[in-house]
Amino acid sequence: MRLDTKRIHSGRVIDLDVDTVRFPDGSTGQLEMIRHPGAAAVIPFASDPLGPDPTILLIQQYRYATNGSLIEIPAGRLNPGEDPRVCAERELLEEVGVKAGRIERLTTIWTTPGFTDERIHLFWATDLTADRPAREPDEFIEVTPKPLSEVLKLIRSGVISDAKTALAVLFVAGFILEH
Amino acid sequence: MRLDTKRIHSGRVIDLDVDTVRFPDGSTGQLEMIRHPGAAAVIPFASDPLGPDPTILLIQQYRYATNGSLIEIPAGRLNPGEDPRVCAERELLEEVGVKAGRIERLTTIWTTPGFTDERIHLFWATDLTADRPAREPDEFIEVTPKPLSEVLKLIRSGVISDAKTALAVLFVAGFILEH
Repeated sequence: MRLDTKRIHSGRVIDLDVDTVRFPDGSTGQLEMIRHPGAAAVIPFASDPLGPDPTILLIQQYRYATNGSLIEIPAGRLNPGEDPRVCAERELLEEVGVKAGRIERLTTIWTTPGFTDERIHLFWATDLTADRPAREPDEFIEVTPKPLSEVLKLIRSGVISDAKTALAVLFVAGFILEH
Repeated sequence: MRLDTKRIHSGRVIDLDVDTVRFPDGSTGQLEMIRHPGAAAVIPFASDPLGPDPTILLIQQYRYATNGSLIEIPAGRLNPGEDPRVCAERELLEEVGVKAGRIERLTTIWTTPGFTDERIHLFWATDLTADRPAREPDEFIEVTPKPLSEVLKLIRSGVISDAKTALAVLFVAGFILEH
């Protein structure tokens, strides 16, 4: 339970609070908490997900945190009050340049609950039609289509190391196997 | 590329820097970056992972960020310079009260690379023997053994929503299916 909160930093992407907290045993302590508005991420299927070895439109993206680039699915922060599905549609257009005829929710995850309240809503998108990407100025993105079988191998080998991407693909691969 | 860095906050779990960065196109900008020492997380198998429906020792843990508790695998921060495997062993003992005869690496993930350099090294542990848990004062943890089939259902239904936990279990379930 929160007893007190102190805003240390108001940022562009995140805010940092130091909260005074009462723990379940009645003791109190201080916790750093990164406040994040949440995000949506979406697997774009360029071919029928239930067909043989469907193609996924991954992106290769510069990530300062990693000192290089990561292979990911399109994702982005929620605007205030935004429906995660609308955010997923926006990121599909901005990062991959497609519109989806159909977007289905997979699940919602806590990215790293030890120090942030960030949740990512995961989706998969099908029935894609090409449109024009509208990138934000600090996004450096290349679209890289890959068959699901190769994506699974890249997850196994650790080449795909972005948590939301690996999790979303393993999650949807389970669904596909059942059908 | 980092041009400049300013430490905004030095915390107990994380540090916050605001870095001035040169992007791949030569432009510059500022990025908030949560510095984290990295972590290890481990799936404890209480029975043979290749046997029928093996049992996993999950933990239910109070998480202030979520306003409640989460079902997770044991995990913890790396000490400075610590081998992730040693950290996994320590967390098995601290959080679950077991020692592992065998610990195998699964993969390493970036938890949320948009704003932190945190990586989690994922393992699975077998040949467990009971020992005495040695909890840290602000950890509120209950061990909850569950069969893999139920854990997979809880991931599908969204009851298990911790990213590292869902990812590690889906990852290892793929290995088990292949054997």
